[in-house]
Amino acid sequence: MGLGVVGGGVADALLQNPSPVSERVGRAVNLRRVLVRDTSRSRDVEVPPGLLTTDAGEILDDPEIDIVVEVMGGSDPAADYFRRALESGKHLVTANKEVMAKNGVDLLELAQANGVTLRFEASVGGGIPIVGCLMNELAANDIYHIRSIINGTTNFILTRMALQKAPFAEALAEAKGLGYAESDPTNDVEGIDAAYKLTVLATLAYGRRFRPEHVYRQGISALEPQDFRYAEEFGFAIKSLAIADIQDGEVQLRVYPALVPAENMLGNVNGVYNAVEVHGSLTGRVLFHGMGAGRGPTTSAVLGDLVATARLMSRETSLAGPRHFKEQAAVRSIGSVFTRYYIRLIVADQAGVLAQIARALGDEGISIASVLQKDTDLESQSAEIVIMTHPAQESFVQRALLSIGNLEPVRRIGNMLRIEE
Amino acid sequence: MGLGVVGGGVADALLQNPSPVSERVGRAVNLRRVLVRDTSRSRDVEVPPGLLTTDAGEILDDPEIDIVVEVMGGSDPAADYFRRALESGKHLVTANKEVMAKNGVDLLELAQANGVTLRFEASVGGGIPIVGCLMNELAANDIYHIRSIINGTTNFILTRMALQKAPFAEALAEAKGLGYAESDPTNDVEGIDAAYKLTVLATLAYGRRFRPEHVYRQGISALEPQDFRYAEEFGFAIKSLAIADIQDGEVQLRVYPALVPAENMLGNVNGVYNAVEVHGSLTGRVLFHGMGAGRGPTTSAVLGDLVATARLMSRETSLAGPRHFKEQAAVRSIGSVFTRYYIRLIVADQAGVLAQIARALGDEGISIASVLQKDTDLESQSAEIVIMTHPAQESFVQRALLSIGNLEPVRRIGNMLRIEE
Repeated sequence: MGLGVVGGGVADALLQNPSPVSERVGRAVNLRRVLVRDTSRSRDVEVPPGLLTTDAGEILDDPEIDIVVEVMGGSDPAADYFRRALESGKHLVTANKEVMAKNGVDLLELAQANGVTLRFEASVGGGIPIVGCLMNELAANDIYHIRSIINGTTNFILTRMALQKAPFAEALAEAKGLGYAESDPTNDVEGIDAAYKLTVLATLAYGRRFRPEHVYRQGISALEPQDFRYAEEFGFAIKSLAIADIQDGEVQLRVYPALVPAENMLGNVNGVYNAVEVHGSLTGRVLFHGMGAGRGPTTSAVLGDLVATARLMSRETSLAGPRHFKEQAAVRSIGSVFTRYYIRLIVADQAGVLAQIARALGDEGISIASVLQKDTDLESQSAEIVIMTHPAQESFVQRALLSIGNLEPVRRIGNMLRIEE
Repeated sequence: MGLGVVGGGVADALLQNPSPVSERVGRAVNLRRVLVRDTSRSRDVEVPPGLLTTDAGEILDDPEIDIVVEVMGGSDPAADYFRRALESGKHLVTANKEVMAKNGVDLLELAQANGVTLRFEASVGGGIPIVGCLMNELAANDIYHIRSIINGTTNFILTRMALQKAPFAEALAEAKGLGYAESDPTNDVEGIDAAYKLTVLATLAYGRRFRPEHVYRQGISALEPQDFRYAEEFGFAIKSLAIADIQDGEVQLRVYPALVPAENMLGNVNGVYNAVEVHGSLTGRVLFHGMGAGRGPTTSAVLGDLVATARLMSRETSLAGPRHFKEQAAVRSIGSVFTRYYIRLIVADQAGVLAQIARALGDEGISIASVLQKDTDLESQSAEIVIMTHPAQESFVQRALLSIGNLEPVRRIGNMLRIEE
């Protein structure tokens, strides 16, 4: 299979050898051409010069290219490239929320008419697989609502304002400094980016044509530090939410900063993270939480779509399962686990017990991080000792516990539990 | 397309008219036969008597049945039915974690050899679409680890023990009373059920053959109320986790109660909820949270698989998109939003201001839930008033704000934010 890429962002993943895509598809998927603005610019990733082009036609008109991947962004000229690719029978994988929000249904219909697929997992939620889940895994549900945090830049700014009670301008400057906000942050802080994404999600959830203009938008720039203080006093966090809900067949779409109960999962989505809560008729509320942007998550989504497209193409001769399983690998025993441990012991309430226990642990190289000692039963003169260890390998902990169990003043090992952080 | 169902659990959803499956596939998917133990037993759902059978052959040998759905559970005779269905060229959709854990890879290979699909979303995580996501959306990632809460019964018991510091036996009895635990709870409380599910997830994540015996298991019955008290003192919750991780190509699989930081998302998964955290090489950590069991979530997963299977069958003549979009529906305006509101006002610090504001709200039928009044600036003699309203329709709130903005002592409307609970 031949592959053309519009925009340079994911080319490194496609140039890897062995190719993760080919490996997962079980068939060679070869990168043939990468469209860039300037072939002479130096790049993070070394692309063989023969692959680079500034002429879109070299991808869109190449009959050897079966799948076009678009990661350039913006609606012009991307929307035009999309039409040309689909009309010439090429499958399309895109990260473009703007084009999908403005022309998504027309393009899906054009793909259908041309017998090809159009996938766009990377357009919403980055590494959160919400697009595919709405189309496939959750397809049997009627969707009651979607409530989401789908713009990492605003969520970063709001998290800063909440933690530091910083003014908006200061938090925005910090976001710019870290590369989370662009020099013109309008698209993010005014909710335009989130409105595009919400349009895409609503289109999938309700199976209808929505446009970005259907989304009511309120930005975050008018928020002041005292709003966060007061919200906190009332037990709320402030989050910029993108919400779609339906009532009597009518849909309401909105992006605005809202008060969310502090104990609510959405209220605890911080920094550049994204989250999407879907309330389905069968499944109830399902929450997805993960990184909403960045090279890794975008690449994950684009390559996932690419694998799905290539698998579907390969499956023309078979309707079979998704991958080949390797023979069984070595499985590590529980003794190889390396973590911290919680150990509760019931001991005779007498002097020197802890010293004996510490020695038994020390003999296996295990050091104690903290200890609680509690009198539990005056009548039987027993006490409880609770130990939190520093990280250690479980086989040594098991051996130490055998020794400890044999110590005269130790009546019983109450429990040993691992700590997973 | 013809459909046979083994076990009665999801038959109601398949008997609905119009059929949600046919609607989503764009082609009739007809239920032809339901295998049950006893055709004369009364059922919640009225199944036309002609559809019921106690003879598996009437499904497995019926050439008009293209897809078999299995929701009976247990490995015998289900595993045998699976082989017969796949060998006779029928697609299979199952909720059976035990068979998939013990024979999953063999069955997937058998499906592949027979040119049919085997889907099993409902076998793990109920309404959480983790099976499909590992196979498809996250397919491009190398999976570093999976950490999950995938047994709702134990999570319910542990939540009770944590909240009420109840002994295990008492929390178990409560779970039985509510129908969350079976009369013999061994499979759940000893981690057997979770080990089956973890085997399925690890097989998908690592593309290798694992068996349930590879999973180290520790049940929850030895936990005592004081373990929860001590864990809390150290800042931890106790959760039964199912964990898979890989190191130097070797995989470790374990199910045990562990200490999880209380502020961690997994530490806040309560009651019968499930959660799965996947750490992928590209996507970073993605968390899925939702209902892990019950009729609705299971039906969601089974029907999702059924829709995918039927779409794939229909797509033999086309590789096109996933669904038909209806023409645009009515979109409700922001004025139709019905919620509570946070209103911050900057007012002159003088008597009677609050009364005027309350009157303006009352005139629109909006009642106040609580008020904060703060002196903010002695020099300008201004104060801030923060109002939380009871639920109201936004159009009335907007009108009230217009009136309030015109009140003489009101200097500025600081912010109006909606409360999303």
